[in-house]
Amino acid sequence: MTKNRMEALSDGIFAIALTILVLEIHLPHDASVSIERVIFDAVPKVLSFGLSFIVIGMYWVAHHQLTAPLKHVNRSALWLNLVNLLFICFIPYPTALLGDYPGNPWAIGLYCVNLILVNTSGTAFWLQTNAMTENQGNVPPKVITRVALIHMAPVVIYLIAAVTAFFWPTGSFVLLVLVPLFFIIPNPVMNRILQVK
Amino acid sequence: MTKNRMEALSDGIFAIALTILVLEIHLPHDASVSIERVIFDAVPKVLSFGLSFIVIGMYWVAHHQLTAPLKHVNRSALWLNLVNLLFICFIPYPTALLGDYPGNPWAIGLYCVNLILVNTSGTAFWLQTNAMTENQGNVPPKVITRVALIHMAPVVIYLIAAVTAFFWPTGSFVLLVLVPLFFIIPNPVMNRILQVK
Amino acid sequence: MTKNRMEALSDGIFAIALTILVLEIHLPHDASVSIERVIFDAVPKVLSFGLSFIVIGMYWVAHHQLTAPLKHVNRSALWLNLVNLLFICFIPYPTALLGDYPGNPWAIGLYCVNLILVNTSGTAFWLQTNAMTENQGNVPPKVITRVALIHMAPVVIYLIAAVTAFFWPTGSFVLLVLVPLFFIIPNPVMNRILQVK
Amino acid sequence: MTKNRMEALSDGIFAIALTILVLEIHLPHDASVSIERVIFDAVPKVLSFGLSFIVIGMYWVAHHQLTAPLKHVNRSALWLNLVNLLFICFIPYPTALLGDYPGNPWAIGLYCVNLILVNTSGTAFWLQTNAMTENQGNVPPKVITRVALIHMAPVVIYLIAAVTAFFWPTGSFVLLVLVPLFFIIPNPVMNRILQVK
Repeated sequence: MTKNRMEALSDGIFAIALTILVLEIHLPHDASVSIERVIFDAVPKVLSFGLSFIVIGMYWVAHHQLTAPLKHVNRSALWLNLVNLLFICFIPYPTALLGDYPGNPWAIGLYCVNLILVNTSGTAFWLQTNAMTENQGNVPPKVITRVALIHMAPVVIYLIAAVTAFFWPTGSFVLLVLVPLFFIIPNPVMNRILQVK
Repeated sequence: MTKNRMEALSDGIFAIALTILVLEIHLPHDASVSIERVIFDAVPKVLSFGLSFIVIGMYWVAHHQLTAPLKHVNRSALWLNLVNLLFICFIPYPTALLGDYPGNPWAIGLYCVNLILVNTSGTAFWLQTNAMTENQGNVPPKVITRVALIHMAPVVIYLIAAVTAFFWPTGSFVLLVLVPLFFIIPNPVMNRILQVK
Repeated sequence: MTKNRMEALSDGIFAIALTILVLEIHLPHDASVSIERVIFDAVPKVLSFGLSFIVIGMYWVAHHQLTAPLKHVNRSALWLNLVNLLFICFIPYPTALLGDYPGNPWAIGLYCVNLILVNTSGTAFWLQTNAMTENQGNVPPKVITRVALIHMAPVVIYLIAAVTAFFWPTGSFVLLVLVPLFFIIPNPVMNRILQVK
Repeated sequence: MTKNRMEALSDGIFAIALTILVLEIHLPHDASVSIERVIFDAVPKVLSFGLSFIVIGMYWVAHHQLTAPLKHVNRSALWLNLVNLLFICFIPYPTALLGDYPGNPWAIGLYCVNLILVNTSGTAFWLQTNAMTENQGNVPPKVITRVALIHMAPVVIYLIAAVTAFFWPTGSFVLLVLVPLFFIIPNPVMNRILQVK
């Protein structure tokens, strides 16, 4: 099993996960509903679609940064990657839930739990693959730790967002939007981190 | 992040967006509906499926023309491309709306807004990537401007179509069909533009 | 636009069309239906899923044989290919109809019309690409004609099947199954045709 | 038809099959259902999603091991591979059934039958391709037999699971989970088998 194959499957899964998100914005089966009502009701679904698209896009960029320095993969790496992709593939479900129950703390909470599992399994993949004898020396130990910390940092925000959801849903949603923005918009913190690499 | 990866993800997303369009032509859950009725009711859905297939096909051809001259991509280019793909991935939703509410001005209007966002974000991607220091000299400045203008030209038509929809839906639909036809059928205007390139 | 890109998009579309067929075997929303009833009702849907999987698989094999000898593609070739893929992508709809209305002549008829359009557009693509000045000499004229005839032959069967459907649906279905079997199971007719190539 | 093309289609199909599994966890159309109820009802669907994701992941790893030693493919190999993919593509249906009727013996039974067909068709592909004159010598005859036996071994477990389902569904489900775990978690049996290869 080569690294190329693992990346091809991962890229395919990211492309599909991004594209099927729109299928969760269902149209009503009842044709008597006015179109203004349908579009108005779709607004929270469109917002959760947009959030998840950006979030999965962020994970796609991150996935490439995690696999780029690897020279070898073994069975364990393959399976840790599949577990990471399992949580990526699950994102459309809490996305649909968030669109159907906008601002509901359980919907936001489940969304946060899903993202925490993506970041945690991604970090496990990063640490396992860099610990493989064949990959040792590819990445300086200091950078391994730093990248692991960057990938675990959002977990703290998602935990805060999950708790915040139960007394201030809007604040929780803002936190969920801020994480990808931090990784997308060039900022001095990210620049310093990327420079070291 | 190499340009190849960005293109692979984009090609995957285009392939999926084209293929899942058909899933929006839902069959009725009520088995007592006669098949003649089902097929008759599906006609507007099939027409909007056909329109969107050709439209996304047109964007796929355009996407390759925008990425072909690039030698380098950076984080901003990657994210502008993802925003462009976000609007491509959204097309199945207004397509389904147009199939369920054929001729409705809001359905046509939303469809036009979606396409305007695709063309605008595509042009932003084109201008940003060609402004990168690493890509300077790949494309003569005159061609950069010309391609940007070609990609923004349909926006004017879509704006006219969105307004026309509220008093003459059929005329609006004809405008939406004419744009891809102009890019598909060989014509002297396109030939002159392509020659310069 | 290179031939590789066109093939990558086509392969992606074939893979997705094959995989989403299963989504048309919907489960009832009414949880009170017994599972024996659900499975029993799904039998015609499973049969039409199987038929369409084999049919699309057959078109995938054919697609490669049509594109293999090409050295160059132009805008017209690209668009004829997209039209061919449009009809491939539409197959899940008559498949679902056939599963919901098993043996219904209109369902079989629409299915036949869909396949006729695939074969006709595929033949148009084959003739157009081989007529391009850049591709002349790749394939002997005799073989061009022969391949075109092989690809148009099933159209006759599908026309007969569409008419037969209105007085003997089972016979019509048998004809639809025989076409892919003829192309799959090694037989002297196909062997002679393939030898010439 | 090259082996690369066959692998590209197969990888695409595996990626899509893994990603669309989540679409079977439908949200209720009735907006009056409380979110706690929705999430609670989704638990068996999430479990069957997780099981099928791991199962398809296991088949993806196996597929690469079956195709890796091949140097040539012919039409029969191509079609045996497509039949194998047909049964892979069908997995989302019994998965959805298992999620809607958790613990139901017919749901588990159908799931087992599906997996038996995957393993059997995969083994047929392996034996056929290695029997081709062009591939002889790639794999020692002893290894061909051993790999065929490993791929048929789960069939016995699935048969036991299908029968067990009718008097002890939980035990049956445990058996279904144990098979992928055996192939994922490093163990002395698998190590000995892999060493010989």
